[in-house]
Amino acid sequence: MKGLRINGRRLQEQIAALGRIGALPGGGVCRLAFSPADKEARDRIEDRMRHLGLEVHIDRIGNIAGVRRGEQPGPAVLAGSHIDTVGTAGLLDGSYGVLAALEAVETLNEAGARTRKPLAVMAFVNEEGARFMPDMMGSLIFRGDLSVEDARRITGIDGTTIGENIDRTGFAGPELPGALPVHCYVELHIEQGPVLESEGRTIGVVEGVQGILWLAYTLRGATAHAGTTPLEMRRDAAYVAAAVVHHARRLALEIEGQRATVGAITLAPNLVNVVAEEARVTVDLRNPDSGRLRMAAEKLHDLVLETARAERVEVERQIRVNVPPVSFDPSIVETVKAAAAGLGYGSRRMLSGAGHDAQIMASVCPAGMIFVPSRGGLSHSTREHTAPENLEAGANVLLHTLLSLSR
Amino acid sequence: MKGLRINGRRLQEQIAALGRIGALPGGGVCRLAFSPADKEARDRIEDRMRHLGLEVHIDRIGNIAGVRRGEQPGPAVLAGSHIDTVGTAGLLDGSYGVLAALEAVETLNEAGARTRKPLAVMAFVNEEGARFMPDMMGSLIFRGDLSVEDARRITGIDGTTIGENIDRTGFAGPELPGALPVHCYVELHIEQGPVLESEGRTIGVVEGVQGILWLAYTLRGATAHAGTTPLEMRRDAAYVAAAVVHHARRLALEIEGQRATVGAITLAPNLVNVVAEEARVTVDLRNPDSGRLRMAAEKLHDLVLETARAERVEVERQIRVNVPPVSFDPSIVETVKAAAAGLGYGSRRMLSGAGHDAQIMASVCPAGMIFVPSRGGLSHSTREHTAPENLEAGANVLLHTLLSLSR
Repeated sequence: MKGLRINGRRLQEQIAALGRIGALPGGGVCRLAFSPADKEARDRIEDRMRHLGLEVHIDRIGNIAGVRRGEQPGPAVLAGSHIDTVGTAGLLDGSYGVLAALEAVETLNEAGARTRKPLAVMAFVNEEGARFMPDMMGSLIFRGDLSVEDARRITGIDGTTIGENIDRTGFAGPELPGALPVHCYVELHIEQGPVLESEGRTIGVVEGVQGILWLAYTLRGATAHAGTTPLEMRRDAAYVAAAVVHHARRLALEIEGQRATVGAITLAPNLVNVVAEEARVTVDLRNPDSGRLRMAAEKLHDLVLETARAERVEVERQIRVNVPPVSFDPSIVETVKAAAAGLGYGSRRMLSGAGHDAQIMASVCPAGMIFVPSRGGLSHSTREHTAPENLEAGANVLLHTLLSLSR
Repeated sequence: MKGLRINGRRLQEQIAALGRIGALPGGGVCRLAFSPADKEARDRIEDRMRHLGLEVHIDRIGNIAGVRRGEQPGPAVLAGSHIDTVGTAGLLDGSYGVLAALEAVETLNEAGARTRKPLAVMAFVNEEGARFMPDMMGSLIFRGDLSVEDARRITGIDGTTIGENIDRTGFAGPELPGALPVHCYVELHIEQGPVLESEGRTIGVVEGVQGILWLAYTLRGATAHAGTTPLEMRRDAAYVAAAVVHHARRLALEIEGQRATVGAITLAPNLVNVVAEEARVTVDLRNPDSGRLRMAAEKLHDLVLETARAERVEVERQIRVNVPPVSFDPSIVETVKAAAAGLGYGSRRMLSGAGHDAQIMASVCPAGMIFVPSRGGLSHSTREHTAPENLEAGANVLLHTLLSLSR
């Protein structure tokens, strides 16, 4: 089956059709988890699965799996992603991975190809966490980290609970989450970063997901008149906030594999002629190595405390997110790499900077990911875009990865 | 008249009474310029002037002067300030200077004291500029920098014009601004800074007002994913914003007499996991020396451009306020200093960091200022406070300064 290729035009049509559900007036899509639009999109996926002859399993939180029988019974080679979106999303984040897996199945069906192991396609619920926290909820529940009962009680940004939404729309099925036996998990996704595009590569062979720490600093100084207060009498929260930015940059330069971003600064009273009394500063730290990530956070904190002490500013730190790094299974990584090479696509090994269901699944079974380029590195944006030939290439790599894994 | 002293209790009562007009529920006062509360306070001042036997002159923008005849005709020794306030003000900023001047007049009346030159008390309109820009409007119009016709067309934060407000409330009088002949101008004011309090001095002998430059930087980078974008591909507007803060601090340390404050930073999109696309940063630069002030602004701009170039961030700078420094008349400064010494009060020479009508009047006639301590350096705050004994001391210094100048 070396010559087998997916149908790129059909994949594009499926992406466009799913994108019409929850479409935004100026382009892009809004399908928040457990919303009517999300339900409509799920119904479409379920119909397609049945149309392709898959055996559909829907669990009690709404994860949908479609299983294609193998020559032998046993755990399935699973491919998937999610179809929920953030509030102003493009058509690819999540949906591409699900639709490409279904396209791979349709390609196999058309070719009359059998695999030894069963193949399955999964659409996890609520990967984005944009309406109901936490994100990656469907895979977390699949893995057993969160019970359906606890999840149903979670209240979203609109004040409703997941349980209410599920019951109103008939979102859930009868199965126990995690009951589906899986041999391994592969997720195809757009990169959501600029690396592949800038290097002119078609395929990212993802070796793991960076660890993520989100820190929230609250810095408390004292308000003072900009014209009349001498430097030595100031307790300037904005000055310490600026130091956080500089210290974060220093970490990114000094610590291997370290990303550090200060994206949000809020000063009070935020007036031109008043020394800031308070500053709230967020820091996003990422590193594929958990030891280095912890070291970065500690070093940053030491530097911030040192600057704050000299300025007589009080420091409070909260850890908002703490996701440990994940390494994908080496054999899956090699399989993806070989598939890309066999198809003649330029590839590179890389890490995912963003979180994905695959990092949750990595402790359930061997897991891996395939990336394709994102124009301008954009994601979570209605301007998100990947060239059709790259979408086709990624789906072909997924097809041949699944063929290798299900042999 | 060396032994003459003002009545501290009466001064306190007058401050409290004026503070009831436009009083805020939790303390403090709101008397925005040209508002009904401002008009009510003006009426009270006018009544008091007439009650003290002063000849009242109200000009076409609403500046009120009360003249106490001297033994000889001629230009008046003028003392004053303003009675309008910012939105959440204390009872002293401005009002104290007007009420202390009236208290000095009442003290002279009670003592049956005559002065050779006429004395006059002035309440300038709209010193704060909180509702209608520019600030120090009454003295600017008095000096002839702004015509009454142009001022009447100015639209305020509530969408009404000064002209409408004046006509509705009967705010203005018949006289031409600037028609009152003045020999010199003295303004008593709370310090609005922490220097006198921290040094335990009662009187500030003000030698001049710092020059003020307000710069507004707009920094334009590119939005990017915090997890996936390598450092070298970032164009981080927040990083350059932080550099502005650091460069400003450097100026304050390196340039003589320099104050530099970044009080406001606004990032977009201001999210924890997105590299900032845009930053708006204000810089408040002050220096008593106009050459050093200009040098500080140029040096800052060079440093900002250098940092921005390395980060590939675009820089736009606007100059929002540009007030040159003012030196007060040496003979007035010496007269204030001698008055404080004669009364036995500890004093120090100092500069005003904030703007005052006196800096406008300094190019009309010899001018000077007297400061008293502000608790915690607070001003433009409902928590603004000066100890009663210091208010009394400042009024006594004003009285004896006026006596010297009107001899």
